[in-house]
Amino acid sequence: MVIVLGNNPNKEQLGGLVSWLEAQNVEIRKTEGSHQTILGLVGDTSKIDIDLILSLDIVADVKRIQEPYKSANRKFHLKDTVVDCGGVPVGGGHFQIIAGPCSVESEAQILSIAQDVKAAGANLLRGGAFKPRTSPYAFQGLREQGIELLLAAKAQTGMPIVTEIMDMSQLPLFEQVDVIQVGARNMQNFEMLRQLGRTQKPILLKRGLSNTLEELLMSAEYIMAGGNDQIILCERGIRTFENATRNTLDISAIAALKGMTHLPVIIDPSHATGIARLVAPMALAAVAAGADGLIIEVHNDPPRALCDGPQSLTPKAFEELAGAIEAIRPYAHNYGTPR
Amino acid sequence: MVIVLGNNPNKEQLGGLVSWLEAQNVEIRKTEGSHQTILGLVGDTSKIDIDLILSLDIVADVKRIQEPYKSANRKFHLKDTVVDCGGVPVGGGHFQIIAGPCSVESEAQILSIAQDVKAAGANLLRGGAFKPRTSPYAFQGLREQGIELLLAAKAQTGMPIVTEIMDMSQLPLFEQVDVIQVGARNMQNFEMLRQLGRTQKPILLKRGLSNTLEELLMSAEYIMAGGNDQIILCERGIRTFENATRNTLDISAIAALKGMTHLPVIIDPSHATGIARLVAPMALAAVAAGADGLIIEVHNDPPRALCDGPQSLTPKAFEELAGAIEAIRPYAHNYGTPR
Amino acid sequence: MVIVLGNNPNKEQLGGLVSWLEAQNVEIRKTEGSHQTILGLVGDTSKIDIDLILSLDIVADVKRIQEPYKSANRKFHLKDTVVDCGGVPVGGGHFQIIAGPCSVESEAQILSIAQDVKAAGANLLRGGAFKPRTSPYAFQGLREQGIELLLAAKAQTGMPIVTEIMDMSQLPLFEQVDVIQVGARNMQNFEMLRQLGRTQKPILLKRGLSNTLEELLMSAEYIMAGGNDQIILCERGIRTFENATRNTLDISAIAALKGMTHLPVIIDPSHATGIARLVAPMALAAVAAGADGLIIEVHNDPPRALCDGPQSLTPKAFEELAGAIEAIRPYAHNYGTPR
Amino acid sequence: MVIVLGNNPNKEQLGGLVSWLEAQNVEIRKTEGSHQTILGLVGDTSKIDIDLILSLDIVADVKRIQEPYKSANRKFHLKDTVVDCGGVPVGGGHFQIIAGPCSVESEAQILSIAQDVKAAGANLLRGGAFKPRTSPYAFQGLREQGIELLLAAKAQTGMPIVTEIMDMSQLPLFEQVDVIQVGARNMQNFEMLRQLGRTQKPILLKRGLSNTLEELLMSAEYIMAGGNDQIILCERGIRTFENATRNTLDISAIAALKGMTHLPVIIDPSHATGIARLVAPMALAAVAAGADGLIIEVHNDPPRALCDGPQSLTPKAFEELAGAIEAIRPYAHNYGTPR
Repeated sequence: MVIVLGNNPNKEQLGGLVSWLEAQNVEIRKTEGSHQTILGLVGDTSKIDIDLILSLDIVADVKRIQEPYKSANRKFHLKDTVVDCGGVPVGGGHFQIIAGPCSVESEAQILSIAQDVKAAGANLLRGGAFKPRTSPYAFQGLREQGIELLLAAKAQTGMPIVTEIMDMSQLPLFEQVDVIQVGARNMQNFEMLRQLGRTQKPILLKRGLSNTLEELLMSAEYIMAGGNDQIILCERGIRTFENATRNTLDISAIAALKGMTHLPVIIDPSHATGIARLVAPMALAAVAAGADGLIIEVHNDPPRALCDGPQSLTPKAFEELAGAIEAIRPYAHNYGTPR
Repeated sequence: MVIVLGNNPNKEQLGGLVSWLEAQNVEIRKTEGSHQTILGLVGDTSKIDIDLILSLDIVADVKRIQEPYKSANRKFHLKDTVVDCGGVPVGGGHFQIIAGPCSVESEAQILSIAQDVKAAGANLLRGGAFKPRTSPYAFQGLREQGIELLLAAKAQTGMPIVTEIMDMSQLPLFEQVDVIQVGARNMQNFEMLRQLGRTQKPILLKRGLSNTLEELLMSAEYIMAGGNDQIILCERGIRTFENATRNTLDISAIAALKGMTHLPVIIDPSHATGIARLVAPMALAAVAAGADGLIIEVHNDPPRALCDGPQSLTPKAFEELAGAIEAIRPYAHNYGTPR
Repeated sequence: MVIVLGNNPNKEQLGGLVSWLEAQNVEIRKTEGSHQTILGLVGDTSKIDIDLILSLDIVADVKRIQEPYKSANRKFHLKDTVVDCGGVPVGGGHFQIIAGPCSVESEAQILSIAQDVKAAGANLLRGGAFKPRTSPYAFQGLREQGIELLLAAKAQTGMPIVTEIMDMSQLPLFEQVDVIQVGARNMQNFEMLRQLGRTQKPILLKRGLSNTLEELLMSAEYIMAGGNDQIILCERGIRTFENATRNTLDISAIAALKGMTHLPVIIDPSHATGIARLVAPMALAAVAAGADGLIIEVHNDPPRALCDGPQSLTPKAFEELAGAIEAIRPYAHNYGTPR
Repeated sequence: MVIVLGNNPNKEQLGGLVSWLEAQNVEIRKTEGSHQTILGLVGDTSKIDIDLILSLDIVADVKRIQEPYKSANRKFHLKDTVVDCGGVPVGGGHFQIIAGPCSVESEAQILSIAQDVKAAGANLLRGGAFKPRTSPYAFQGLREQGIELLLAAKAQTGMPIVTEIMDMSQLPLFEQVDVIQVGARNMQNFEMLRQLGRTQKPILLKRGLSNTLEELLMSAEYIMAGGNDQIILCERGIRTFENATRNTLDISAIAALKGMTHLPVIIDPSHATGIARLVAPMALAAVAAGADGLIIEVHNDPPRALCDGPQSLTPKAFEELAGAIEAIRPYAHNYGTPR
């Protein structure tokens, strides 16, 4: 951490700051320039509150040198984390496709899709039971019953299941769910993250619509601080000024995150674009850029889907896409040895 | 709602769409242009899922004509809503200042600040008990004890209190809290909104960092759908590319919301800017633009605040600001008769 | 175009609007709903000023149905445009790599790099002579001399050259330049676009940092309106809230543009990310998503580059990347028949 | 400037970097921490290319301490600059309203509006002769003739005039224009800025739609580097995700800029919002926040304006607004002594 002082800092205040810093067990290296004095802090600065220092009149700026995330930091954990999703590994060279409908609608629907996506090459089944909808008047998911139907599909196909939690009071219903998804709108629901950190379930953590990669890692850090390091990060599109697509899928997040963290990174091309014909090219782009997996919406009858229909692929289109993904996989970017 | 069809739509699919729409109880008015055919829908289209229609191959685009929010819509409720905050009215010409520390730290601190801000003109006391922090390693608030200290300050000063809830399991602790705050990061925590709709408490709903005004009103709609219409909207800065300020305070949200909704709109200049010297000019700007109130952080000893210190004003600076606000109030923009 | 009227529109004003619209040679189809009346306009609405209509008190909203771009519109020109860049075709299935240094620095430098990138598989040479720099104190390029050095490299290697124009007064210097680049910051320099429309040179038009795809096509439209349809669109990263990368490379722009326009679309992974190690994965992602080409910075000695150094690849790293691109090309997304 | 080195930096490369830095006349202060080594640079670092240093393998990060702008920097020029606009001072406590139509349309129109706005309290007349329009098919302004009509209005009313330049070839036409406006889309047209720096005309420099305040000051720096320090900065709305308003007017830019620079700052509430009924509340907000002036569109017959109609106020509405501005002015935030 580097503290930039203003012109002619008040000596008494400076003395107070220096004493306070020393009490935090950091060493101070002072450098005086012609117009500016800077204090370099050596030691563990992770507990020092930058905002607090910034609030002092004598301080012009504070520059952080260390990343604020530790458990998720690649620097202190070179090897890729492999997340065990009910027997299916994700990360560390293990690439997986998670597929299924936006919402679970009926037993016939979820069983049929589960069989189709399994046959096409998906290894994990997704489906929404609790659905976060912008409007209180829109379909909110089958809730408890949706989870039961997913478990039935799991029992019949053997595919581990991934589904979203919306409130911690729902946790008991997730006992047999293999991967708990935290949606984009809950990425900074810190009470939820804290409690999920005390479970042993793999967490699929979606990036918030306007959250930086550093904030995504800080949210992973919340879960890891509780003792759960089974986290899959998921980029699903960020909010920008562009409106030709629903969100802007940040494919560069894959490469950036690979340098920042050891956690696996997957891509959701369905929610990002909101347009069915963009799903396939973006899925291939994500694979080429070295993603550890994809989460793709598939529906047996897109026009009748009860939510998010336009993003869904038919099972037939998904089968073609899965083939194209399989073909391009060997040529994907490889992030090298630490992996 | 207007549905734009693609070139030469398949007649069978079009027939299917028309039948389906008619089953939703809307009338259809078809207009054929040289390159395009459009279907105008007449009637209550609020239950029709746009995404579902967009998923059809024959559909090129769908334009919504009606706003998706109803209970919060000014169109159907011309008169300003006045929210009763423990006896203090907000909205409909009643302007109030909510002031207090970022976090409750001790009994001495909260009592001292409460007395100071009351003397300076604030009518409601704020203070964080549960604190949403980006880092799991940062101070998370005094939690239960923080609420108790706020209640002690209320008992002593008579000021109604405003404090943030972070998880619905905390609700029993809020029984004597006058206004429950929903933080920016929980603006789309739909389970929380739904449950708050079943309470009779006034809700101070903060706009998410990247949420549109329409989304803010849809979140208010969730609360109102449960039967609770005591909602104060709060603009607290949005995330943009600019980094000279922590967030960009969207002052134009006041005027835009005044046209869209009858709910009161207040401004938080402290969190938006993150810089103490910007709080006063932005507070005055908000008042001039016709805000129904302000929520301002005040701290008796800024350098020792445990969180968000740099935004805080000292009681003395707050007193000066309250005087400037009082002076400028008569010249603020007036939104006229419906008010 | 659909005009949404407010409640109970003033009859006289409505009559005036209808007369004015009829004078614009459009037919009007009126639909009256319970709360709203809408006017559907049939015919050529491209000359009708939406803002003008919106300014009327009786109008609540205007929804555009037709795209505002015509010459660039895929709807009216199904077949992919192939741009002839000094004998090298771009678009319509012709994929090309444009490579070279950020700035031309010396004859030795540009010749050496030109030979290296040609050997590695690039077909077009790029290099900056006029450099747009944020700071007036930074190196601004060799200007006239830079163009001469590029022409010398072209003479020796036979590679057509691409370089940026910053002001139309520089045009005479571009007589032997094969492709004129319009930089992101000039994407809406309408006087420049208008004048380039009167030349016969291929134009490489970069998307502005915060411009929508529709605005990019409107800028292409300016050039095409002058008679020049030899335009290559280039996505080079957009400005978002994220700061882990310099800009956010919008890979989905490829797929979105392929549906909107027939013009070729290339990607600049160097400027978008600003980080050398991200260039390769993003280049592969762009190829997988079906881009028509790439523009990549290569430098023979990255640490000594006079500008934008951190994005540059060494010739050796470029050669490896060109091999990886060659390998992945057959598995790229194919946009099908109209192409 | 602080250079953060990676783990175990290569000694030879580090030696090379240190030698190179010393050759740039900066002193180096090295601080070794447990995980990181940092180099603090003391002296004038303004000519050192950060990107160049970042490109070195041994460098993990570079933090700038000094602002990159000098002439525009408040630090080196405490006193407010007062810009002389044809005899009307702007800045340093001199508040002015610039008013007029979006486009000059006819002699009758401009004369009538000029008289009206002067009577209502405006001191400078604005009007577009060269109009930047997104579409090549839209009205582009009366160009030369528009300037002549403005000069006629100036002759008759005595009001100095402000109008936009779109290309430097138009400069001879601006000989009698009092203030040259650089539009948002040309804020980083560096060739234009450089040439305007060699004139003695006051420049009204509009902030680009997605440009940071630092970039705005760097563009001012381009003009000042040529010797022209008569610059008025203008905030006119930035591009964000919000679409309830055309752009988001960044009122906090006033307060932020007052700390960064000595140049006057004015606000354009008309273009920012794009909605006539938002102009008045935002104008009052800007005044309250301490702006040095406003630029407001006024039209004698809004529905017939040829461009940007919906933002315009009628002369009568402008007169009311000017009265409200006059009333609120004494209560505006005051930035204190340096002013």
